[in-house]
Amino acid sequence: MREGGSQFAPRELAFHMHTGIYPPDEVFMHRALGLAAHGLGRTAPNPPVGCVIVQGEQVVGEGFHPQAGQPHAEVFALRQAGDRAKGATAYVTLEPCSHSGRTPPCASALVAAGVSRVVIAALDPNPQVSGRGAERLRAAGIPVTLGVMTDEAVKQQAGFRSLTVRGQPWVVYKYAMTLDGRTAAVSGDSRWVSGEAARALVHGWRDHLDAIAVGSGTLITDDPLLTAREVPGGRDPRPVIFDRRGRTPLAARAVRPGAVLVTAPETETSHLEAAGVHIVRAHDLPGAMTGLGALGITTLLLEGGATLAGAFLAADLIDEVRVFVAPKLLGLGQSSLAAPHPTTMGQARDLTDVNVTPVGQDVLIQGYLHAVPELEALPATAQFA
Amino acid sequence: MREGGSQFAPRELAFHMHTGIYPPDEVFMHRALGLAAHGLGRTAPNPPVGCVIVQGEQVVGEGFHPQAGQPHAEVFALRQAGDRAKGATAYVTLEPCSHSGRTPPCASALVAAGVSRVVIAALDPNPQVSGRGAERLRAAGIPVTLGVMTDEAVKQQAGFRSLTVRGQPWVVYKYAMTLDGRTAAVSGDSRWVSGEAARALVHGWRDHLDAIAVGSGTLITDDPLLTAREVPGGRDPRPVIFDRRGRTPLAARAVRPGAVLVTAPETETSHLEAAGVHIVRAHDLPGAMTGLGALGITTLLLEGGATLAGAFLAADLIDEVRVFVAPKLLGLGQSSLAAPHPTTMGQARDLTDVNVTPVGQDVLIQGYLHAVPELEALPATAQFA
Repeated sequence: MREGGSQFAPRELAFHMHTGIYPPDEVFMHRALGLAAHGLGRTAPNPPVGCVIVQGEQVVGEGFHPQAGQPHAEVFALRQAGDRAKGATAYVTLEPCSHSGRTPPCASALVAAGVSRVVIAALDPNPQVSGRGAERLRAAGIPVTLGVMTDEAVKQQAGFRSLTVRGQPWVVYKYAMTLDGRTAAVSGDSRWVSGEAARALVHGWRDHLDAIAVGSGTLITDDPLLTAREVPGGRDPRPVIFDRRGRTPLAARAVRPGAVLVTAPETETSHLEAAGVHIVRAHDLPGAMTGLGALGITTLLLEGGATLAGAFLAADLIDEVRVFVAPKLLGLGQSSLAAPHPTTMGQARDLTDVNVTPVGQDVLIQGYLHAVPELEALPATAQFA
Repeated sequence: MREGGSQFAPRELAFHMHTGIYPPDEVFMHRALGLAAHGLGRTAPNPPVGCVIVQGEQVVGEGFHPQAGQPHAEVFALRQAGDRAKGATAYVTLEPCSHSGRTPPCASALVAAGVSRVVIAALDPNPQVSGRGAERLRAAGIPVTLGVMTDEAVKQQAGFRSLTVRGQPWVVYKYAMTLDGRTAAVSGDSRWVSGEAARALVHGWRDHLDAIAVGSGTLITDDPLLTAREVPGGRDPRPVIFDRRGRTPLAARAVRPGAVLVTAPETETSHLEAAGVHIVRAHDLPGAMTGLGALGITTLLLEGGATLAGAFLAADLIDEVRVFVAPKLLGLGQSSLAAPHPTTMGQARDLTDVNVTPVGQDVLIQGYLHAVPELEALPATAQFA
């Protein structure tokens, strides 16, 4: 577990404050989002949340939610601020909770600490509590500003929102291909399509996402480790093995405690269960996704396997796409996706919110097939009281 | 034909001069390259060349080579400058000629006009004349600066350099694919992979390149126009039909005067010849390229046709690659290249000098499989006298 009460030197803050390029609210919320990111991959089924307490232009407290069962971000930040929270502004990336759960409600803690203003990036996506935290603050006479860096916050909370709203994980489909669209040579050889920088970044994603999907074909052929081993202090994602017929060998490296086997209802799995593998039984992919949601998995990284990825696409279960394009030509080879049915060019699925980023010698193209649940329903900017 | 003596208002120049971001030599050479670009697609077998005459910080003459048989860039620029050329600096994108051809030698014209300095981006690639123009200037006591924006100039002159050094056109391979690497649906349907901005840019390339290659399969299936019809004042490239067996129908829209048919030695072609089609007979692709070079074609745009493109790649005849990646997923479909033999991932051909540019909603990835001939042999910077 990472420490929730951090001491990250906010060097960038002073720069941004004094250049005046960004309004102060955005500068501090950006900082809070950066803090929240330290919880990515560690907080499920809770969201990653960051909090910054600012007295004047001075940061007096910082925190993030490190792990389910641990205190929320606001608790760490208020603890660090101490008396200096009185009259300060609190920045939180998600609406403070209003209900007593494993911890007392954070909205009440902010009131008790005497903060004079609260800035919230995004409301809670749970319709039963959404708006209640803000309301409690308002009722205590504390002005609440909503809608600062909402888009960034909602995307950071995609997994939590997906699980809360849809009961299933947010699916990130990732692959690397050559400039002629090949993910592997005819022989299946795929070492390496992309360069070292791209591969290091993928390990960072593995560290940040709850689980990683793999088809039984890839498991048997490549016996992948599916770890975030290149990330110092990294956390390995839970392997989720899609294996309708139960072909997974007990000796596979992905078979480890915490791994999940998605299989047909009738598959014999006792040997895998004995090895600490969770079993999700489903008739189809949507059912499997519900089963993974029930395990508290908020985010799922889908890495290659043309048949599995094609089935995900056909079932409209891919939410986000991250593709490395390597500037090289292979001439013949395999493709990333093998959907079960042909389509016309007009039926191709458009990505939205596309980002293009050079990564080493490769180009990362990232975008969305679905909006993050509730993203569109959130007010862009709203003022409470 | 476009006018060689232009009156383009050099608005950008003043900006760059006064910001001081670029040294003056680069600012004026950049301008000369911009002028030269107006000749792209019109000067074969000559190179596109631009010239700027600068008195103090004042541009007093500008010109470009508009078409073979017309005066060179220096002539237009000197004509515009008149007496103001005396003591001025001349910027030329290619070494001034030293031999009397269809026009008197430009090096002599610069000497006669009394310019006090000449800046040259790149030497002539023809070993029999390379360096002689610079030498003639030097012999007349005029200082010559060589190597300003050489890389940009050499790339702009890629076709001329390829024809001069290798006796064959510079081949630009272009296609558009989805993010899962499909250039068409399973049915062959490819309307549209990329967006309007990308398609407009392709018409600009067609306007700038001498010829456009098409396989007989594509010709028969799609009957493409192969024009630059979206470019106002555009010039259509010469269609080059690769058709070993002579299947090209006389009624095909690409069959027009100036078109070229590349076919086997024994193919009957009299009906096409009667329609104004040039015939290149060859046993293989390298032979065909020599034949196209003999026709004075300096640049060839290769647009799709997986089999033809695969044959070009296998014969190592692709020099430059321009790929539009459209951010959409198709799931199944056709690939850009069908090389005749499988390769391993390690044998993939790396592009160099890669540029990534957003074009509308698409991403253009451009790079090189070969250096422009003589690019590496040219001195990066050299001073004469």
